[in-house]
Amino acid sequence: MKAIVWDKGLRFVEDYPPPEPKKGEALIRVIMAGICNTDLEIMKGYMGFTGILGHEFVGVVEVVTGDNRCLIGRRVVGEINCGCGMCPAYCLKGLQNHCPGRTTLGIAKKDGAFAEYITLPEGNLYEVPDNLSDEEAVFTEPLAAAFEITDQIHVKPTDRVLVIGDGKLGLLCALALKLTGADVSLAGRHGAKLEIAQDQQVTAITIEELIIEKIYDIVVEATGRPDGLATALKLVRPRGTIVLKSTVADERRINLTPVVVDEIHLVGSRCGPFKPALRAMSKGGINVKPLISGIFPFSEAPRAFEKARERESLKIIIDFR
Amino acid sequence: MKAIVWDKGLRFVEDYPPPEPKKGEALIRVIMAGICNTDLEIMKGYMGFTGILGHEFVGVVEVVTGDNRCLIGRRVVGEINCGCGMCPAYCLKGLQNHCPGRTTLGIAKKDGAFAEYITLPEGNLYEVPDNLSDEEAVFTEPLAAAFEITDQIHVKPTDRVLVIGDGKLGLLCALALKLTGADVSLAGRHGAKLEIAQDQQVTAITIEELIIEKIYDIVVEATGRPDGLATALKLVRPRGTIVLKSTVADERRINLTPVVVDEIHLVGSRCGPFKPALRAMSKGGINVKPLISGIFPFSEAPRAFEKARERESLKIIIDFR
Repeated sequence: MKAIVWDKGLRFVEDYPPPEPKKGEALIRVIMAGICNTDLEIMKGYMGFTGILGHEFVGVVEVVTGDNRCLIGRRVVGEINCGCGMCPAYCLKGLQNHCPGRTTLGIAKKDGAFAEYITLPEGNLYEVPDNLSDEEAVFTEPLAAAFEITDQIHVKPTDRVLVIGDGKLGLLCALALKLTGADVSLAGRHGAKLEIAQDQQVTAITIEELIIEKIYDIVVEATGRPDGLATALKLVRPRGTIVLKSTVADERRINLTPVVVDEIHLVGSRCGPFKPALRAMSKGGINVKPLISGIFPFSEAPRAFEKARERESLKIIIDFR
Repeated sequence: MKAIVWDKGLRFVEDYPPPEPKKGEALIRVIMAGICNTDLEIMKGYMGFTGILGHEFVGVVEVVTGDNRCLIGRRVVGEINCGCGMCPAYCLKGLQNHCPGRTTLGIAKKDGAFAEYITLPEGNLYEVPDNLSDEEAVFTEPLAAAFEITDQIHVKPTDRVLVIGDGKLGLLCALALKLTGADVSLAGRHGAKLEIAQDQQVTAITIEELIIEKIYDIVVEATGRPDGLATALKLVRPRGTIVLKSTVADERRINLTPVVVDEIHLVGSRCGPFKPALRAMSKGGINVKPLISGIFPFSEAPRAFEKARERESLKIIIDFR
């Protein structure tokens, strides 16, 4: 099958052996898959992963090996963490995303979605509502990561919230957070990206306009830059909350004394719940279409990666049909 | 009056002008005051403070300027943060410890307790129960900082808690936390210090015995070392909580990716509530006496500071009578 493989270099191959679904797994034919910054970080050494990249996808179930025969032929998206299903500390508490023995699609010990076929446990799959296009469905995984914030912390409608970083993740976080009714702002460097948020009831602030003052109840760090946390610490109010969304391969040099003196809550936030993400896109609360910067067929996948690295780009999607 | 003044160097003077209480403040004659690691950090540049050092004290009220005439002659301890009393975001919400305009005794814009006299707002003072000695009362402020942890986060009796760092603050945190009924361990490098915790229902673990595994629900970082957080990240379970208690003058170089991947809650924690601290010492739940490493008269204060810097020392107290 066609596949995009990372192993020190990026290879675009046509003869990769298709995966075999294990008991309880489904075999899914990938329709489209999105390039995430995490893919680019993996190519810098993050997670030490080698194999097929990619974890944002929409596809059609072709084979099931477990009980969910009704999934066959359905258009699905899928949660990317696969727990052992048995550990009492995590899997049996509904925390399979934190199972120490987990594999993660295209990130850890499991081939990913930049391929014609993938496997995932049937329980990880969610049917895509008919009114969502394939390219919208690709956003389910990253939008779910944005909803992880409100799944972890209570964002009140009276809160003043700032998201820093107007990349894909920052934009999706701002869009998910505005649903709380809170006063949500997005700070970034790119006028065109900020406009996407502005068009959907988020206040856009350019870096030049941003007043450095400790006034925000909640600051979401989604810059992907090593200095993002230091910036967030200058903007969050005493006793406020900073949500860390960026995973970067580099170490950061930081003075954490303000965390202690201002008694800041710092919350790391990763993968999130798929159902609210599908619901928000399907019911019209969040429009992800303006975030699409390009859809490339597999034959042009090298160009897709070039484009994904450009500062101006948002979501780049590869079409595997 | 006698006073210990920090201004690039440490000066032990006898002719410092006594402070004048402002409206609403009390004038307090200091009986004893304790040396805190924060004092030693200030002498390395932390907070950029100059003036009389010291913020852990017990004293007797000599003058009141406000309504609390009943305080006169009482033996008191006092909260060290003095808010403006008027700001709606902090003081009027009971958060004067975070008032942006606050002064802090011996730490920020207010002369401290290494002196014969100090002033504090009357509302900051708490009478010391008769059954507590002067030297025990000196521990109220640092023990209150330990109780700040359970004031900020819910520690469950089913939690597995680890305090790292067997200095004064680490010991007091372990002692305060054991009152929750949780399984509390203290990890450190000093057998004699660990024994103090062991004698009071805390499990003591030497650094050599400590198994580096992500198993603790809550890890309290009280090492005072720049690498303390990195160690804590190797010990806290996914979705667990790290409480940061150390304030150090240095920057730390750290990879915060585990905070995101393991979705760790990181909570900065500073000054805490005095009443639970007085109650725990007075009612016998916590015995701080074994933490006293020496009591020195003002005439021997230079030796007191030398002793406070020794690795083996715990609390050093200066007697101002």
